[in-house]
Amino acid sequence: MIETALEEDIGSGDITTSLMVRKRTEVKARLLAKEDLVLAGREIFSRVFATLDPKVTCTWFFEDGDQVKKGKVVAELRGDARSILEGERVALNFLQHLSGIASFTREIVQKIKKYQVRLLDTRKTTPGLRALEKYAVKAGGGYNHRFGLFDGILIKENHIAVAGGIKQAVTRAKAKASRFLRVEVEVNDLDEVRTALEAGADVLLLDNMDLDTMRKAVKMVKNKTLLEASGNINKDTVEEVAKTGVDFISMGALTHSAPARDFSLEIVNMVKRR
Amino acid sequence: MIETALEEDIGSGDITTSLMVRKRTEVKARLLAKEDLVLAGREIFSRVFATLDPKVTCTWFFEDGDQVKKGKVVAELRGDARSILEGERVALNFLQHLSGIASFTREIVQKIKKYQVRLLDTRKTTPGLRALEKYAVKAGGGYNHRFGLFDGILIKENHIAVAGGIKQAVTRAKAKASRFLRVEVEVNDLDEVRTALEAGADVLLLDNMDLDTMRKAVKMVKNKTLLEASGNINKDTVEEVAKTGVDFISMGALTHSAPARDFSLEIVNMVKRR
Amino acid sequence: MIETALEEDIGSGDITTSLMVRKRTEVKARLLAKEDLVLAGREIFSRVFATLDPKVTCTWFFEDGDQVKKGKVVAELRGDARSILEGERVALNFLQHLSGIASFTREIVQKIKKYQVRLLDTRKTTPGLRALEKYAVKAGGGYNHRFGLFDGILIKENHIAVAGGIKQAVTRAKAKASRFLRVEVEVNDLDEVRTALEAGADVLLLDNMDLDTMRKAVKMVKNKTLLEASGNINKDTVEEVAKTGVDFISMGALTHSAPARDFSLEIVNMVKRR
Amino acid sequence: MIETALEEDIGSGDITTSLMVRKRTEVKARLLAKEDLVLAGREIFSRVFATLDPKVTCTWFFEDGDQVKKGKVVAELRGDARSILEGERVALNFLQHLSGIASFTREIVQKIKKYQVRLLDTRKTTPGLRALEKYAVKAGGGYNHRFGLFDGILIKENHIAVAGGIKQAVTRAKAKASRFLRVEVEVNDLDEVRTALEAGADVLLLDNMDLDTMRKAVKMVKNKTLLEASGNINKDTVEEVAKTGVDFISMGALTHSAPARDFSLEIVNMVKRR
Amino acid sequence: MIETALEEDIGSGDITTSLMVRKRTEVKARLLAKEDLVLAGREIFSRVFATLDPKVTCTWFFEDGDQVKKGKVVAELRGDARSILEGERVALNFLQHLSGIASFTREIVQKIKKYQVRLLDTRKTTPGLRALEKYAVKAGGGYNHRFGLFDGILIKENHIAVAGGIKQAVTRAKAKASRFLRVEVEVNDLDEVRTALEAGADVLLLDNMDLDTMRKAVKMVKNKTLLEASGNINKDTVEEVAKTGVDFISMGALTHSAPARDFSLEIVNMVKRR
Amino acid sequence: MIETALEEDIGSGDITTSLMVRKRTEVKARLLAKEDLVLAGREIFSRVFATLDPKVTCTWFFEDGDQVKKGKVVAELRGDARSILEGERVALNFLQHLSGIASFTREIVQKIKKYQVRLLDTRKTTPGLRALEKYAVKAGGGYNHRFGLFDGILIKENHIAVAGGIKQAVTRAKAKASRFLRVEVEVNDLDEVRTALEAGADVLLLDNMDLDTMRKAVKMVKNKTLLEASGNINKDTVEEVAKTGVDFISMGALTHSAPARDFSLEIVNMVKRR
Repeated sequence: MIETALEEDIGSGDITTSLMVRKRTEVKARLLAKEDLVLAGREIFSRVFATLDPKVTCTWFFEDGDQVKKGKVVAELRGDARSILEGERVALNFLQHLSGIASFTREIVQKIKKYQVRLLDTRKTTPGLRALEKYAVKAGGGYNHRFGLFDGILIKENHIAVAGGIKQAVTRAKAKASRFLRVEVEVNDLDEVRTALEAGADVLLLDNMDLDTMRKAVKMVKNKTLLEASGNINKDTVEEVAKTGVDFISMGALTHSAPARDFSLEIVNMVKRR
Repeated sequence: MIETALEEDIGSGDITTSLMVRKRTEVKARLLAKEDLVLAGREIFSRVFATLDPKVTCTWFFEDGDQVKKGKVVAELRGDARSILEGERVALNFLQHLSGIASFTREIVQKIKKYQVRLLDTRKTTPGLRALEKYAVKAGGGYNHRFGLFDGILIKENHIAVAGGIKQAVTRAKAKASRFLRVEVEVNDLDEVRTALEAGADVLLLDNMDLDTMRKAVKMVKNKTLLEASGNINKDTVEEVAKTGVDFISMGALTHSAPARDFSLEIVNMVKRR
Repeated sequence: MIETALEEDIGSGDITTSLMVRKRTEVKARLLAKEDLVLAGREIFSRVFATLDPKVTCTWFFEDGDQVKKGKVVAELRGDARSILEGERVALNFLQHLSGIASFTREIVQKIKKYQVRLLDTRKTTPGLRALEKYAVKAGGGYNHRFGLFDGILIKENHIAVAGGIKQAVTRAKAKASRFLRVEVEVNDLDEVRTALEAGADVLLLDNMDLDTMRKAVKMVKNKTLLEASGNINKDTVEEVAKTGVDFISMGALTHSAPARDFSLEIVNMVKRR
Repeated sequence: MIETALEEDIGSGDITTSLMVRKRTEVKARLLAKEDLVLAGREIFSRVFATLDPKVTCTWFFEDGDQVKKGKVVAELRGDARSILEGERVALNFLQHLSGIASFTREIVQKIKKYQVRLLDTRKTTPGLRALEKYAVKAGGGYNHRFGLFDGILIKENHIAVAGGIKQAVTRAKAKASRFLRVEVEVNDLDEVRTALEAGADVLLLDNMDLDTMRKAVKMVKNKTLLEASGNINKDTVEEVAKTGVDFISMGALTHSAPARDFSLEIVNMVKRR
Repeated sequence: MIETALEEDIGSGDITTSLMVRKRTEVKARLLAKEDLVLAGREIFSRVFATLDPKVTCTWFFEDGDQVKKGKVVAELRGDARSILEGERVALNFLQHLSGIASFTREIVQKIKKYQVRLLDTRKTTPGLRALEKYAVKAGGGYNHRFGLFDGILIKENHIAVAGGIKQAVTRAKAKASRFLRVEVEVNDLDEVRTALEAGADVLLLDNMDLDTMRKAVKMVKNKTLLEASGNINKDTVEEVAKTGVDFISMGALTHSAPARDFSLEIVNMVKRR
Repeated sequence: MIETALEEDIGSGDITTSLMVRKRTEVKARLLAKEDLVLAGREIFSRVFATLDPKVTCTWFFEDGDQVKKGKVVAELRGDARSILEGERVALNFLQHLSGIASFTREIVQKIKKYQVRLLDTRKTTPGLRALEKYAVKAGGGYNHRFGLFDGILIKENHIAVAGGIKQAVTRAKAKASRFLRVEVEVNDLDEVRTALEAGADVLLLDNMDLDTMRKAVKMVKNKTLLEASGNINKDTVEEVAKTGVDFISMGALTHSAPARDFSLEIVNMVKRR
């Protein structure tokens, strides 16, 4: 993925840098936080430079998951000026995106931390970046739902439509699925909650339910199965949802709509001409 | 890229769908806009399904760049239920992201349309998705700046630091660069504007300048060279910037911070059992 | 994978065929079973030829999972003679291996079919062929255990050694793992069975246990958790293991030691010279 | 190939190990032979770990081709516990398969070692693993036939059918093929032996011949050309075939039906917490 | 390889064509020979366009290997104007290079056609293009030597130096090599010819020998082994070499120094606007 | 690209070297120039060996761009004999080709060095090798034109035909193209020169013009725009073209028809048996 991103940006060559910077010019540079943020993406940031030039070194002053104040020096780089300038934008593009996700996740987690509930991500991720984005959610204090279609069973509305109803769908899954995975099913109202429970579902996903219905669902399933709330939850409503007593809240916005956080990379001086 | 995204989501197989849906079940499905948006990403959406199964067909009711109202049916799909369910999330992940960019771009373009100025994107894109994101900017009514380091000369602050000053940097570029490319240079104040002009720069990038300085810069360079405003411009300030008379305004947020637009895909009926 | 296999066999070209067979010679060929077998691998067999030449057609007379008697015609191919001869060995190499696995699995399944037990495969597969081999196990009537390290939790002896004991290991997994997966743990004697049960394990893997101990384990866990027997089980001992009442029996030999089943491909006549 | 195999097994991550084993835990582990065997696959076993983590070291106590007794320590590994546990299964899957082939080959070679005959492998190999499997045959004391369709001429029954007869096939090959390769042709009876000889074939492949016919063929071609026996030869009949005086015996079973040999990897102690 | 070449040329997009040519403009174009030449590369030329756009059609008026006069129309293309303009240069780059090789080979073949000798290529090919270049040599009337290090034995001066002499080198090869390949060895004078013959070499490569020594070598080996002349042979000296009676002449220049032949592609009219 | 080239040459293994050279034999070898030449390709030559075996070292006695006399030792290699022999041909194939281009370019540059003109390459390069070939042109003293279709606007005859004339084509480009690129257009006579000038073209490509017309064109555009001469220029005519006063001369032959320069690699002694 790093190679694809570098290829995309550098292509047949960095014209400006090759005009401006002599070969074998060694420099020191500082990575600065331009706003308050939660850091995520240290390793991939470093690897972008390592991919271009194994001699570039990054010294970090914060860990992933740390809160960083605006203006702080996050890391210091040393190495060949051409390598640093050619890798700069790609490395920053990863870092600003992942730190955006971690920062937004932390903001939500703060709002619900006094409740017994886990904040989950979804599969609504940027194509090609899922592993990194799910990592950033964890750095921000969230938990990961399944990674893809391959490591969990979640029966959604379209599956139910094709299977012929919640009861048929859950029954079939319990009979034929690997017994090593739990069976989760999407439900929209209390009738469906009841049907899913009776069919033996292990987890219920309450989709777009109002707060009152959620509370009733929680009461209905208490200690029988797990509940996940999902759909139309945002930073203003999340605390009310947490209060209902569900076990999980999942939000697609964590990965698909978190605004980037701003960093800059500044060359501070020329170390020596090698 | 589509293959990577499908591999990332499907991996060793879609467990739920293979449990729920019999092979060779043909269905019809509808793609719905869940909020007002500008559409972008039709082709890659269709190709996701075509990659999984060439027999899935998508019939579109809107073009990329069209304004779509909440609740409208954007497209209709027909084909094998398994293929449609397996490709659904990846296809939607592309579409929601690209339509997010197009919608946000359109919003900005509306604010500045009465001025003689082009809205440009930047290289602050999601790694691996630059071509698509720049396409979405155009669908929203924006223009593309260079695609990468390979197709344009832009001398930035770090280059100037290493080259020993604006004058030296621009002079060297004019002497040694390919004469088929224009030379752009980043400037921070009116002194630098003057120096860059004298050294022969073809385009000036006004970085993080206040409105008053921008206006003076415009007056100073009138008809001599082109001006691009960049840095800290958002939807509230963009119109004021446009009024200064610069030729271009560039905004990284178009590609790195546009929130996703919401779509859903709903199976409407089973066409036949083949 | 097909491309790799064809590249490996054909490399810089099929010297013999290009000497012997004129371009555009159309032939009909028959695929024959040279011994009794359970068929598996139809689709990949066909795709080998389709990869070389989309115009080669395969007509099948049996389904995957069918019992085929020695001497039967399994399929008929038509197409360009060069394409058929160049793809022959690779296609047969897939088919003989997968049908070997299906046949061996069927043989074991027959021995235990009157007991309430599922025969499982393991991760002891041929590198690169896991998905195909697990498919062949299903064609033979077996079930699949997890596909890899990513879709299940199985705490093995080495994990326990590092974690500091069964109790610690299971407790940590129950506390921190995704609640969407069941926790399985390897146990060697009845003490470990007890410890694992108390710590809350969802499935126990009885590793290399003698029959008597297995029976006691079954009695001890009845209706509390699931049991999988594994290690040193072969076609002579499998029925005795099944009788103990375990829920699953897993055998690595299904995928790593099933002998290939013999097929041949014979050109029966030249259809026409195009 | 190693990367494919690791990807196949680890996918989106080793859930169990990341739950059980703290980062930066250093361990020592022992690779044990669980049955008598001929070792093959040292290098690829080591490389699996090197691919995951270049700091894991393997110290070997046997060479490929060595006879190893059940219970012997074959190698000792040191390194990060997570890396060793994540790579374990893939590394063992290669080793058990290749040592299976070497062990089976050695068994056959022992039976024919007093005769002037070379044991050859065939192109009946596992797709994707041909180079490794042919290497294991050599470790067991066998010889390699051609690697693929690109480095030898072998006119088989289907080629003869299309070319219009043995005479035409061999004559054409002698006239048009590169003079740097010998021409081998498949024959089924003594008439075909005679025809092939007269047409100038350099090597004859005696396909599925009975012992008596083989002896006559040997007498007929003495010192004129080379003879290879093939088809339906197994460990019980191979010595009788060797006695006939043929120059080569080829057996597909060496690579497609050799049962795996059993190894285990045991963590023996924690070296230190780094 | 085609994809690499298109990627190299088109990269992030064909700026000129997307500015100049409306989508869905259908055109007819003619491929013209701008000098006398032997054609080679039809298939890859067509495939370049097929890779970009399967709907572009190429109708050819000559076969590979045909002599084409300056000014002749070699082929006619029809299809989308953008596809044809984007693929034009890459397709021509293949064709001009391969036709250059075929034309140069034909020129040499003409000079030696009355002698009993085959003109061979070497491994001195352009990296990545060997299969195509060896194909072009055949189109020009030459023969192929081995394709690479994998399909032939050629003991060169450096091998002899390491092995300890011609006798040792050839003896070892005859003893240990596959008996399905002939053994060729490089010799520099008549003593070495004699040594190689006695050691049993199947082919001798006469390296940089003068004509007189070659003639003596031919006399010495008559009917015992094959002879290949190589080194410093050019179009002026090749006929004299052929007269010596060697069996093969090999020339690296066929593939590494044949000048390109000139073609042009001209759009002749717009077929219709679709 | 190096991996492709090594794969192409070595394939399933270097048969000769594995027969002739014992493992772990260390040697010293010399790279010799067999004719006068300008060196280009040091880095890729070294990397071929590094790809096979990171322990092979190359010590260079010349820089890329240096004039090297016949017989000179260009570099010295040390390392494992098998690695050096396996990589030899591929490394030399790159070096002989790139040094051929650099040598030919230097020859042309010498002829025009007293004129104010830059020698340019074109897109007529060997597929897959463009970046290397353009690098070799610079090593020989030439300049690079655009790298591909993505980094420059050049309106050629076919574009003009589709766009409906020079005036329409240039006008559209000036209106719609990125303002960061200059617009170049192909012209064939003085009328077209005038039209292109009036439409605002930034650079004119004089295609296949006679010397007299070129001189008139130079007079006509003096100080208004840049001029590039192209088409049918060879080493005999290039000086006359330079005298006309054009700003650039471009020659496809630099990359598509420069004959290779000859090198040899000789093992000089065995350093030690490790």
